[in-house]
Amino acid sequence: MAAFPRFTSLIKELPSTVPFVGPEALERTRNYPIIARIGANESGFGPAPSVLAAIREAAGDIWKYSDSEHLSLRLALAEHHDCKPENLMIGEGVDGLLGMAVRLVVSPGTTVVTSLGAYPTFNYHVDGFGGKRVSVPYAGDREDLDALMAAVKEHDATMVYFANPDNPMGSFWHEDDVIRFVEELPETCMMVLDEAYCECGPAEAFPAIDRFLDRPNVLRFRTFSKAYGLAGARAGYIIGETETIAAFNKIRNHFGMPRLTLVAAEAALADQAYLQSVIGRIRESRDEIARIARDNGLEPLPSATNFVAIDCGRDGAYSRAIVDALGARGVFIRMPGVAPLDRCIRVSTGPSEDMDLFAQELPSVLQALG
Amino acid sequence: MAAFPRFTSLIKELPSTVPFVGPEALERTRNYPIIARIGANESGFGPAPSVLAAIREAAGDIWKYSDSEHLSLRLALAEHHDCKPENLMIGEGVDGLLGMAVRLVVSPGTTVVTSLGAYPTFNYHVDGFGGKRVSVPYAGDREDLDALMAAVKEHDATMVYFANPDNPMGSFWHEDDVIRFVEELPETCMMVLDEAYCECGPAEAFPAIDRFLDRPNVLRFRTFSKAYGLAGARAGYIIGETETIAAFNKIRNHFGMPRLTLVAAEAALADQAYLQSVIGRIRESRDEIARIARDNGLEPLPSATNFVAIDCGRDGAYSRAIVDALGARGVFIRMPGVAPLDRCIRVSTGPSEDMDLFAQELPSVLQALG
Repeated sequence: MAAFPRFTSLIKELPSTVPFVGPEALERTRNYPIIARIGANESGFGPAPSVLAAIREAAGDIWKYSDSEHLSLRLALAEHHDCKPENLMIGEGVDGLLGMAVRLVVSPGTTVVTSLGAYPTFNYHVDGFGGKRVSVPYAGDREDLDALMAAVKEHDATMVYFANPDNPMGSFWHEDDVIRFVEELPETCMMVLDEAYCECGPAEAFPAIDRFLDRPNVLRFRTFSKAYGLAGARAGYIIGETETIAAFNKIRNHFGMPRLTLVAAEAALADQAYLQSVIGRIRESRDEIARIARDNGLEPLPSATNFVAIDCGRDGAYSRAIVDALGARGVFIRMPGVAPLDRCIRVSTGPSEDMDLFAQELPSVLQALG
Repeated sequence: MAAFPRFTSLIKELPSTVPFVGPEALERTRNYPIIARIGANESGFGPAPSVLAAIREAAGDIWKYSDSEHLSLRLALAEHHDCKPENLMIGEGVDGLLGMAVRLVVSPGTTVVTSLGAYPTFNYHVDGFGGKRVSVPYAGDREDLDALMAAVKEHDATMVYFANPDNPMGSFWHEDDVIRFVEELPETCMMVLDEAYCECGPAEAFPAIDRFLDRPNVLRFRTFSKAYGLAGARAGYIIGETETIAAFNKIRNHFGMPRLTLVAAEAALADQAYLQSVIGRIRESRDEIARIARDNGLEPLPSATNFVAIDCGRDGAYSRAIVDALGARGVFIRMPGVAPLDRCIRVSTGPSEDMDLFAQELPSVLQALG
C-alpha cells in the first residue's frame, strides 16, 4: 500500500534530517563506545545528591499524573527570580518550549531571524511550522546583534532568536547590549532570548529578571539541563510577560511534565550550594580544556558556558576529522555546523577523568591528521 | 503595553479552556484535600517494585540526555508485540503522541471525526491545529462504528478517533468489528485507534498486532499510564506502519523523553507478572465499584477498563452534584462531559481503602441530594 496520502503539505515537504544525532545513536552507527561524554554540554559533574535523594523518595508516587499547573515548581522559581508564578511556563526542556513558542507565532511563510550556525533545534521547529528563516552571520564569534536587528527590520520578522551566552561559540554580550536590543525591537517581533547557559556566565551578561516582565515580546529560556545537571529529566522554563506566558496554556500538553522531573527540578533549585560548587568545577574544567588546547597548538575561545570552542585553525573538514578521530578513541565531542564557526571543535566541561582522556588522545589525533 | 500582536490567527482564536483540570488544581481551587484519588484512571495499585528499583538504580544517570531513538525500549516493545522497532514511536504519553499525530495530518479546515463525549484531549489537539470536528453520538454507550464510518465518508474526513475500550464509558467492540471498520476505512483517512486501556480489556477486543502493520492509515496508541501504573512518567507509544511512524521523526522533540521514564517503562514491560497481578486487582475493584453502585440503587455499566461508569439515572446536573459532593468528602472522581453520557459518574479502580471511602461517603451524598 502507498504511503498515507494526506500528510499536510508542510509535513510532506519537511526533510527527515534531525538536528542532532545523539551519543547513543553515534555509538551504534559507528560501533565504538563513548568513554568521555563531553559533546552534548551535559554536566558530567552530575546532579546534587539532594536531587537524587528527592527522586528516590518520590519514585513511589509515579502512578499519579503530575500537577498540570506545576505550581510548586513555579512558586519556587518565582521566589528564586523574584517574579510571579504567572510569569513562568514550565516545559519539556528548552527544546520543547522552543517548539511551542514557535507554534504560537509562526505559520507558513512567517519570517524568523536567527544566526547562521546558531541552535539547530530552533531552526528545526521553525521549519516544522513552515517559517521562512533569515540567517545572519556571526561577527567575531558572537551573534551579531546589529545585524540581527537590521534583519528583523528589513524582513519585518515575527520572531528573532538570540542566545546569551551563545552556543556553539561560548561567547556573550553585556546586559546593556541586550537591553538596548530589546528596547529597539519592534513590538511585532517576539524575542527568543535563550539563556540556557546563564548559570555558567558572568553576572554582567544578564539583565535583571524584572527588566522585561512587562514586555509581551520577550521570552527568556532557562533550563535545568546544563549547570543543574538534569539534562535527562527534561525540565526547562520560560520567564515572560503574563499574557504571553498564558498563551502557552492554549497549546501545551497539560499533563506532559513527568512527576519525578518536577521533583528533581525543584530539589535542584533548592540546592544552590551544590550549584555553586558545580559552577566552580565548570570554571576549572574550562581552564583545563583551554590548557590542553594550547598545549596542542590550538586556540581556545573564551567561554561563558559549560563548554569551550577550540579554534583548530583550518576548515570544517579538519575539525570534522578531529571530532571523528577522537570519537573513535572514546572521546565524544561536537563541532559547529557551518563556516566560519566550523574551524572550531566544541568540548564540554566535565570531570577530570574525561579531561585526562581528552588530553591523552588529542596529540596523537592531531599528529595522525598532520 | 498591549498583548503581543502577532500570535497566529489560529492561536488568537483558541479558547483558554483546558481539557482536564488536574486533581491538584481541584484541591487548590476547592480547598479540600483528595483522600481517595479515583478520578483520573491512574493506578492506585502503583507500579511494580521492580520499576521503582530500576528508577532508583538509574537516577544517577539523569545528567545525560536520553537516547533520542529510544532504541532499548523499542526493541523490548518489538519483542513483546512481535513487530519491528520501526513500527514503534515512543512519546510523552498518549496525550503528547495524539498532538503529534494530529499535527501530521490536520491543518486549518481539515475534517476530523470523533464521538460526542470521547476523549477531550484529542479534541483539544484537533482544535489546536485548526481542524474542523465532526462529532458522532454514542449508541448504546459505545462509540458508534457505523455512524463514525458514515461521517468519515460524508465529510471526506482526514482523521477519525476511536477508542477501544472506550473512555469514559468503559465499553468495547469485538476485534472483528474493529477489523471490519479498518478494512472499510478510506486510505485517505488516518485512524487513531486509542487502546490506552487494552491491558484491562478482554483479549477478543484486540486485533493481532500484525493485522494493521501494513496499513499507513492506522495508528494504535498504547500507554504505560494505566495498568502499568506509570501515569506520572509520561510514556506512551504508537504501533503503526513503518513509513507513517517515520513521519513523526520530522516533528517530534527528539530528546524529549526523560531518561528515567524510559527506564521505568522498560522495567514495567519486563515485569509481566506484576502487570497480571494488577489486572486481577483491577477486576476485583471493578466488581467492588459495581457492588457499591448497586447497593446505592445505581446501575454500574460493564467495564473493559480500569474504571467503571455508573449510571445515576438522572441528568448531568445530578451527576455533577454527586461528583462535587464526593469531592468535598475527599473522594475524587470524574464524569463524562456531554449528554446522555453525563447521566453517569466515572470511578477509577483502586486499592480497598479508596473503595471503602467511596462506599462510606456515597450513601449520605445521595441522601443529601435527595
